[in-house]
Amino acid sequence: RINSARLWDSLDQMAQIGPGVAGGCNRQTLTDADSEGRHLFQRWCEAAGMTMGVDTMGNMFATRPGTDPEALPVYMGSHLDTQPTGGRYDGVLGVLGALEVVRTMNDLGVKTRRPIVVTNWTNEEGARFAPAMLASGVFAGIHTEDYAKSRKDLDGKVFGEELARIGWVGDEPVGARKMHAMLELHIEQGPILEAEGKTIGVVTHGQGLWWLEITLIGKDAHTGSTPMNMRVNAGLGMARITERVHQIAMSHQPGAVGAVGQVNVFPNSRNVIPGKVVFTVDIRSPDQAKLDAMRAEVERAAHAIAAELGLGCSIEAVGHFDPVTFDPDLVKIVRQAAEKLGHSHMDIISGAGHDACWINRVAPTVMVMCPCVGGLSHNEAEEISPEWAAAGADVLLHAALEVAEV
Amino acid sequence: RINSARLWDSLDQMAQIGPGVAGGCNRQTLTDADSEGRHLFQRWCEAAGMTMGVDTMGNMFATRPGTDPEALPVYMGSHLDTQPTGGRYDGVLGVLGALEVVRTMNDLGVKTRRPIVVTNWTNEEGARFAPAMLASGVFAGIHTEDYAKSRKDLDGKVFGEELARIGWVGDEPVGARKMHAMLELHIEQGPILEAEGKTIGVVTHGQGLWWLEITLIGKDAHTGSTPMNMRVNAGLGMARITERVHQIAMSHQPGAVGAVGQVNVFPNSRNVIPGKVVFTVDIRSPDQAKLDAMRAEVERAAHAIAAELGLGCSIEAVGHFDPVTFDPDLVKIVRQAAEKLGHSHMDIISGAGHDACWINRVAPTVMVMCPCVGGLSHNEAEEISPEWAAAGADVLLHAALEVAEV
Ligand SMILES: NC(=O)NCCC(=O)O
Ligand SMILES: NC(=O)NCCC(=O)O
Repeated sequence: RINSARLWDSLDQMAQIGPGVAGGCNRQTLTDADSEGRHLFQRWCEAAGMTMGVDTMGNMFATRPGTDPEALPVYMGSHLDTQPTGGRYDGVLGVLGALEVVRTMNDLGVKTRRPIVVTNWTNEEGARFAPAMLASGVFAGIHTEDYAKSRKDLDGKVFGEELARIGWVGDEPVGARKMHAMLELHIEQGPILEAEGKTIGVVTHGQGLWWLEITLIGKDAHTGSTPMNMRVNAGLGMARITERVHQIAMSHQPGAVGAVGQVNVFPNSRNVIPGKVVFTVDIRSPDQAKLDAMRAEVERAAHAIAAELGLGCSIEAVGHFDPVTFDPDLVKIVRQAAEKLGHSHMDIISGAGHDACWINRVAPTVMVMCPCVGGLSHNEAEEISPEWAAAGADVLLHAALEVAEV
Repeated sequence: RINSARLWDSLDQMAQIGPGVAGGCNRQTLTDADSEGRHLFQRWCEAAGMTMGVDTMGNMFATRPGTDPEALPVYMGSHLDTQPTGGRYDGVLGVLGALEVVRTMNDLGVKTRRPIVVTNWTNEEGARFAPAMLASGVFAGIHTEDYAKSRKDLDGKVFGEELARIGWVGDEPVGARKMHAMLELHIEQGPILEAEGKTIGVVTHGQGLWWLEITLIGKDAHTGSTPMNMRVNAGLGMARITERVHQIAMSHQPGAVGAVGQVNVFPNSRNVIPGKVVFTVDIRSPDQAKLDAMRAEVERAAHAIAAELGLGCSIEAVGHFDPVTFDPDLVKIVRQAAEKLGHSHMDIISGAGHDACWINRVAPTVMVMCPCVGGLSHNEAEEISPEWAAAGADVLLHAALEVAEV
């Protein structure tokens, strides 16, 4: 079993870097806080006898050698970046849980045939730079590095420049590493495990996603002196589309979600009818047909609402992944590990996207989940218990021992 | 008649200060650009032989002496501040048109019994600091100076500190001046005069307004892994209330308008269900009963929508004025001036709020309007013709000659 107190203490130390305003974290990707968190992680890895490699997207790979120099390594990890008002465990548990697995192997003097690599993927959240899981996406050949490095945040800052600014452009080519397997531990970020009273989620699938950035163009005009019938109100268009996104998601129940998370109104002045609104729709389903249908319905509704109001409307897909099926053999290994350790468990579909979803395209991949209180995540109040964290890391340990071949 | 070329040239020079990005202006109140515009205005006033006084709210008063030292002065003016993406003429025409009236009187050697005071009122727009017409409101005893000076912009900057920072805290107590009358020239900011083919609007009334700042509190949560029935989505509440504001305004036609101009979503991340939205409703009518009914309906709708979605809802009135009836004798004088000058004219209700609306509470007040192209204002593309500007200033001149007693 892993050292639960040590894991909990490391989680707590990492949470001190880029603290939030309400007990959580604001350690957004490619900020100074991100850099500081990376340095701490690197120190811990080196103290655990690992060697750090960094690729040109800033992905970090800390290697614990195996006994067979020819054997492909087993990767474990997740991400250290957070939402602007994020929790302490989203992503972080997967990185520090993997580190704790290595520390435990060291304590016990366990050797594995395959090397073990603990990974921190850059910009998983996609909060500052869309899309999410950007760097694991480049690693898996989904995005080009040029595309990724040219992504801009709301202030117009460029991904590649910010990565260089914080000093984490490595020298490894992205995606050059070959993997035997990849295991990702993550909090559920949803309410199912807690509601079902299970400690471990064996993740069999991940739902697919579309992020659609909709730009509506109306006409800035005075809210007081412009008659109702002369208005071209982009804000009203945004409101109607937001309602339709909700209705469309509701009409595909169960197994579908949809919401508008980001809205930017221009010029955003109390007495100006909005001349422009840029906002993003997030729709998801584990069912490819539903996901495709929802996308088509949202796009049709947006264009129809815009046409009715006389608005210009353009839609750009700024994030997408198809539903994922994780590796059945690895799924079985995770289920057996939970069983062996005596943890209650259930099969589960990941509602969120994860680096594992992209890595699954290039290597056999699986995820382990543990519950979070009230299913709450992407909120500073995100909470888990030390027991849940330890259970997840224990399952990761036993799955890793199996996959990396003791 | 005034010197049309000189007026147009002054308008153009002022527009160079705080230029916009699309031909208009961004000279928001209490910015460095605002200060620079004030200095230019002061230089012009002094060159025209006037003496500048400034009150503790930064209101500027340039006096041309009358022949009777006992007589109460006639005030003319408007505001030099603009929207963030504002036009070149909104407010500015009223200040520089009044200056042009004085310059013309100087050219012609005209003396008036009453002094004439050309005024620039601080923060008419209310874009950076709500409410609009803030400093004329303090002058008229509507707001306390403490209230006004404690207003904050979106960055948390405080009105009183920003006024001091740009160096325009004067020494006169606010509202100490007594006025014989106040005349304000302004562009219509709406489409009526142009549509009716009239050059001059004789402003008999102004419509009343409520600005309601609505704060909805939901729960930040993950857009992917939070089931639809567990969401407390503040963004959806904002969308529904925005639609209802539109419906309520439509149901009170004719003579009512309503829209949401400013929306701030928190944390404003693509994959976070909004946990908080702060937005402002702007509703107006020249009819007191309609205005009151609309306010009640919006508040009822907001609370009902919030309750249905499980959202917290608080509503703060951040701007308000009742419908205004301007001084009938001054209205007659303006109508006669337009008539005498041979300008086509019509009586009109102001759709926007103006400093004149507050000053009307403490002195007989009237407004003169000229058309703007397509009724467009609060937009950088706001446009007027030199002929319209000159016609407005000519009417102002002839009204002033009458009221200030040649
Ligand atoms: N796990 C997680 O929150 N990932 C961010 C991408 C997503 O929105 O699903
Ligand atoms: N004239 C003008 O745009 N004033 C600002 C206050 C309002 O919104 O009516």
